[in-house]
Amino acid sequence: MTKADIIAQIKRKRSFLCVGLDTDIKKIPDHLQKSNDAVFQFNKHIIDATAKYCVAYKPNTAFYESEGLEGWENLEKTIHYIKTNYPQHLVIADAKRGDIGNTSKRYAKAFFEKLNADAITVAPYMGFDSVEPFLGFDNKWVILLSLTSNSGSEDFQQLSLKDGHSLFETVVQKATTWAASNQLMFVTGATKPEMISKIRALAPDYFFLVPGVGAQGGNLDAVAEAGLNNLIGLLVNASRSILYASSGEDFATAAADEASRLQKQMEIILIKHQLI
Amino acid sequence: MTKADIIAQIKRKRSFLCVGLDTDIKKIPDHLQKSNDAVFQFNKHIIDATAKYCVAYKPNTAFYESEGLEGWENLEKTIHYIKTNYPQHLVIADAKRGDIGNTSKRYAKAFFEKLNADAITVAPYMGFDSVEPFLGFDNKWVILLSLTSNSGSEDFQQLSLKDGHSLFETVVQKATTWAASNQLMFVTGATKPEMISKIRALAPDYFFLVPGVGAQGGNLDAVAEAGLNNLIGLLVNASRSILYASSGEDFATAAADEASRLQKQMEIILIKHQLI
Repeated sequence: MTKADIIAQIKRKRSFLCVGLDTDIKKIPDHLQKSNDAVFQFNKHIIDATAKYCVAYKPNTAFYESEGLEGWENLEKTIHYIKTNYPQHLVIADAKRGDIGNTSKRYAKAFFEKLNADAITVAPYMGFDSVEPFLGFDNKWVILLSLTSNSGSEDFQQLSLKDGHSLFETVVQKATTWAASNQLMFVTGATKPEMISKIRALAPDYFFLVPGVGAQGGNLDAVAEAGLNNLIGLLVNASRSILYASSGEDFATAAADEASRLQKQMEIILIKHQLI
Repeated sequence: MTKADIIAQIKRKRSFLCVGLDTDIKKIPDHLQKSNDAVFQFNKHIIDATAKYCVAYKPNTAFYESEGLEGWENLEKTIHYIKTNYPQHLVIADAKRGDIGNTSKRYAKAFFEKLNADAITVAPYMGFDSVEPFLGFDNKWVILLSLTSNSGSEDFQQLSLKDGHSLFETVVQKATTWAASNQLMFVTGATKPEMISKIRALAPDYFFLVPGVGAQGGNLDAVAEAGLNNLIGLLVNASRSILYASSGEDFATAAADEASRLQKQMEIILIKHQLI
């Protein structure tokens, strides 16, 4: 998927929402539990209910891996379902991988070829040769962790280096020399909008994937103020607030309502910033 | 598996060798390719041939994930085979995971409960709450990336922080406050022995898992000199040099010969340092 495709979709839907498919089998409504692929059935309903309000889906691979073979199968089926029925949506495998070149190549193959995801989140700690193999695929995306939304982001990401920059700023600076904004994005947590501004200054053209709005407490208006650029440049993720908007049989309608509510907020923001 | 169990096994076998099961389906000898679980069959022969020379096995999860469902099944079967037939061997899932607490919990469940691994490699970039969930299991191990053996380790790990320490040193310093040496180890790449000495000074009691000897060019004697402590404290990994010692029908014998050669070198080192 190209950058132009993503921007066009955002403008058409008046939404930069990404729905995080962090599907926890224990939180799926009772009436679906009988099915032997309950996680996939749940995802299918969520996707059908929310597709018109969002531009991307982000299955978090941990939630599938933790269910072993069956989980892996649910992940495959979920991605296949999106790619078949909603081919314009960006599918982000939230896997946070990163290993020596030889091994990263295998992960790239797993996520881009086997699973057919459009994008994968990658951890920067191991440096350029751990990221490079993910950059060798046409119209596929690397979304590099820069500043995450958890409290542990203070432990290393926010430390100051000798030259005065924080580690997360240095990650962004270096990575912008590795790949252009048509195949690289950054993860920038919603809980620290003032730091999103710093990253925007270092990477004016790049898309940011912003987790942490909703359950983690990030504020959408503040994120937009700090992160929007003149080609939008933002994907904001919400997971739990949509997936578990209701625990009853009306879970899909409740998910659609929550996604629609966020879309409307985003539409107002896009109009306000004269982006649509 | 306890620290005392690991040390006792090293002393008994006169070896601190870990065999990396980075099994590439394309490199498996032709006569095994017909089997529909060729990767597992290959691993089984390698394990049977090398078990007496090594104390740990380290399947690299990327090599299994890249083969989709079938790969995941081969990984499960491989770990199950080791735990059933060689229960004294430490099984390290080389997965380099790390995510927000909520998600890391799922990975911990996947690797420690579903797959029954004894240890998992974890990436430090996201800080304490990304590592903590892996520490909640009795006799299971976190092996935290500190200094890796690839060229990209220069990009971030070796940068100097404001206080004069490198990032990899700061990772070790902080992590030693998170967990003791009975449940935490560090990955310290073999290609930079002088940096292994620095890490040893910061973490005198901890075990180090050292990749990069063999195919990646690290030197065993230099690693031992820099990394051994008075309770050994080292696991040295070799993957490709053992797995692909021969590409013919004699691959298992050739793997045993290479593992035996490394074991003998390690025995000499252990005697020289008066550790056995």
